[in-house]
Amino acid sequence: MIILGLDPGLAITGFGVIDCKGNRLKPISYGCIRTEAKLSLPVRLDKVFKEMEILINKYNPQEVAVESLFFNSNAKTVFAVGQARGVALLAMARAGLPVSDYTPLQVKQAVVGYGRADKLQVQNMVKTLLCLSEYPKPDDAADALAIAICHAHSRKMNRVGNEE
Amino acid sequence: MIILGLDPGLAITGFGVIDCKGNRLKPISYGCIRTEAKLSLPVRLDKVFKEMEILINKYNPQEVAVESLFFNSNAKTVFAVGQARGVALLAMARAGLPVSDYTPLQVKQAVVGYGRADKLQVQNMVKTLLCLSEYPKPDDAADALAIAICHAHSRKMNRVGNEE
Repeated sequence: MIILGLDPGLAITGFGVIDCKGNRLKPISYGCIRTEAKLSLPVRLDKVFKEMEILINKYNPQEVAVESLFFNSNAKTVFAVGQARGVALLAMARAGLPVSDYTPLQVKQAVVGYGRADKLQVQNMVKTLLCLSEYPKPDDAADALAIAICHAHSRKMNRVGNEE
Repeated sequence: MIILGLDPGLAITGFGVIDCKGNRLKPISYGCIRTEAKLSLPVRLDKVFKEMEILINKYNPQEVAVESLFFNSNAKTVFAVGQARGVALLAMARAGLPVSDYTPLQVKQAVVGYGRADKLQVQNMVKTLLCLSEYPKPDDAADALAIAICHAHSRKMNRVGNEE
């Protein structure tokens, strides 16, 4: 089961692709998509969308996990992230991929076991759980991997729940 | 010059198409695109995107005008509108259409001549300027027509300014 985790943003969208087989999680790829601030908003959104289509075609994920927004952010950030997230979700809808949403709290809880964990704790656990030789960089890619791991755990929990 | 005005939203996106020839503004079409709350977010965004493509193909606008968000709205609204606006702008980018942004203040100033005008004053002026036999409904369609009118005025002003 290939899972694509996404941390969408207008300037930088983190992605993390993992393979989840039973209890084993294997990293496949991670990184980020950047758009330059000097480009117009529609052109930046078009780039995010195209790169999403490339990711889907390249890694062929079966499920997608995206972070919900942390609503304490300021309105301009929320608006920018919202627009990028919209086109990312559109790419998933057009590929027929199911998308699950997780709050930052859920992601930290799933990965570190503690909802108020800091960035470094999350990166550390992502590195450990995926047996990476180094910390995943940039932060957005680490976050995207954490979201994918969160989804892998959540799927497993749901499956166990349903089997009981 | 066919102008498409848009007032994007997740539940309801208003649109207004006008033909602008010198000082004459002619209404071509207006209305709204609705998405049901019971559908998943990616499916709702996909509907907004598809309907945008249909509008572009049907009316063949040369320029598009979109309202910027009023940042006093609450973060959940900003996030929902942002996602819908993202896919609407993506449709424009993919069609190669230039998009201009206007704040609600600019739209009211252009249409009513007063930045704090209320909804009814805006609707009244839209009806008068476009020689409509009735008030454009729903509000979102009236707003979209107002945005298109604002763009028509702004283009004219810029042209006059450049010619001086």
